[in-house]
Amino acid sequence: MSDPTGPDVAARLEALEGRLRELEDEREILRLITGYGPLVDGGAADDVAALWTDDGIYDVDEVYLDGSAAIRQMVESSAHQGWISGGCAHFLGPARVTLDGNDAVAVCHSLMVVNTDEGFRVRRATAHHWQLRRTPAGWRTTVRTSRVLDGRPESPALLRAGARGERA
Amino acid sequence: MSDPTGPDVAARLEALEGRLRELEDEREILRLITGYGPLVDGGAADDVAALWTDDGIYDVDEVYLDGSAAIRQMVESSAHQGWISGGCAHFLGPARVTLDGNDAVAVCHSLMVVNTDEGFRVRRATAHHWQLRRTPAGWRTTVRTSRVLDGRPESPALLRAGARGERA
Amino acid sequence: MSDPTGPDVAARLEALEGRLRELEDEREILRLITGYGPLVDGGAADDVAALWTDDGIYDVDEVYLDGSAAIRQMVESSAHQGWISGGCAHFLGPARVTLDGNDAVAVCHSLMVVNTDEGFRVRRATAHHWQLRRTPAGWRTTVRTSRVLDGRPESPALLRAGARGERA
Repeated sequence: MSDPTGPDVAARLEALEGRLRELEDEREILRLITGYGPLVDGGAADDVAALWTDDGIYDVDEVYLDGSAAIRQMVESSAHQGWISGGCAHFLGPARVTLDGNDAVAVCHSLMVVNTDEGFRVRRATAHHWQLRRTPAGWRTTVRTSRVLDGRPESPALLRAGARGERA
Repeated sequence: MSDPTGPDVAARLEALEGRLRELEDEREILRLITGYGPLVDGGAADDVAALWTDDGIYDVDEVYLDGSAAIRQMVESSAHQGWISGGCAHFLGPARVTLDGNDAVAVCHSLMVVNTDEGFRVRRATAHHWQLRRTPAGWRTTVRTSRVLDGRPESPALLRAGARGERA
Repeated sequence: MSDPTGPDVAARLEALEGRLRELEDEREILRLITGYGPLVDGGAADDVAALWTDDGIYDVDEVYLDGSAAIRQMVESSAHQGWISGGCAHFLGPARVTLDGNDAVAVCHSLMVVNTDEGFRVRRATAHHWQLRRTPAGWRTTVRTSRVLDGRPESPALLRAGARGERA
């Protein structure tokens, strides 16, 4: 009589575990990215900084921050606190994630929407390219490169590279 | 000769089932949240109401609705129907979900974009904090608390709490 | 002595494999949809075209494109390249996906945000209804129907149908 579980139970379990791990990796990365906007608009400086590795890079047009301590200071700065107290949404779109073992690339758009005397306005539309790495503490951003979509060629190039899972 | 399936098949199956259930829970919650905008802009009053528990709370700045019947009436109201017939998008961002057994918290931004004589305008940017519960009929919203991002301190506080998986 | 793995290992493995396949299907569909905006704003004409079947339909208000070759040409057109060189974001929201075996329906909003002399403006808010099919090469769009949310009744109807997993 044949074994009802089949000879391949171990292989099937391993395959399931591997596929599930990929889905969980992607969920964790999406959780990181979907946290950015609420945390930065919430002024949660430590939480924002913790989305990056200690030596992670935050590179947005004229602002280049090297390390999570500098990112924390940016959130705590009077400039950033002024956005919050005036009314502001860093509204990120749903990311496309490309996993490659312990590394990942993701891409999304964002709109920075601010409250003004004439109502809410889109202050900028931005292309975001994320590089992420699995660390002992979980997935973290190693480099986020963001460029305003004002026609400069870098911005569409970031979107293309990010959508294809290529580095910036 | 050792058993190729190992002694731990039952434990591995149980672990897989538990991890999969978490991913499915999160998918169902995201499906609920991603349904809100299309259903409310589609005027699907019953479908919108069914995203909440019967005694669920819909709390948006000046509007406080207690129970899904009141939510249904809001969608059917001439005020809401006026938004639809004028042209309107309740555009919600991708949510960050924190599961805790049969409860969950989620957070996202939204933009309400309306069609005007001068083209489309962002009428408001809003912080949304969702509390959800697993019911026999599936996940439902128990309390959704939404505040405009115009500088009032409640709104960043909702984003922080939501991103951290804390109640409002 | 009873078998610690239980008599139902094969059934449990099959159930897990089926549930995982559904999550993977949904992930692949979301990956397709989240790729659209970055690829179209990145001018990646071949990549955009490859999101559709060869005979896929792209139906947006006045523009009706029949087949992926026509979609590729649209991205390469001077009109579309003008949006990119001027600064443009096709910002899609998170989709709600309804799977039905080898077919699927998805719904989302989008905002087309353009860079102008007076800053960024929302040029249009759009309802998107996606029909998708599993092909030997993976999930592809068979019909995408998009209508501007300017009050025309088609647009809320698309949102309703899409959110309910119904065809357009």
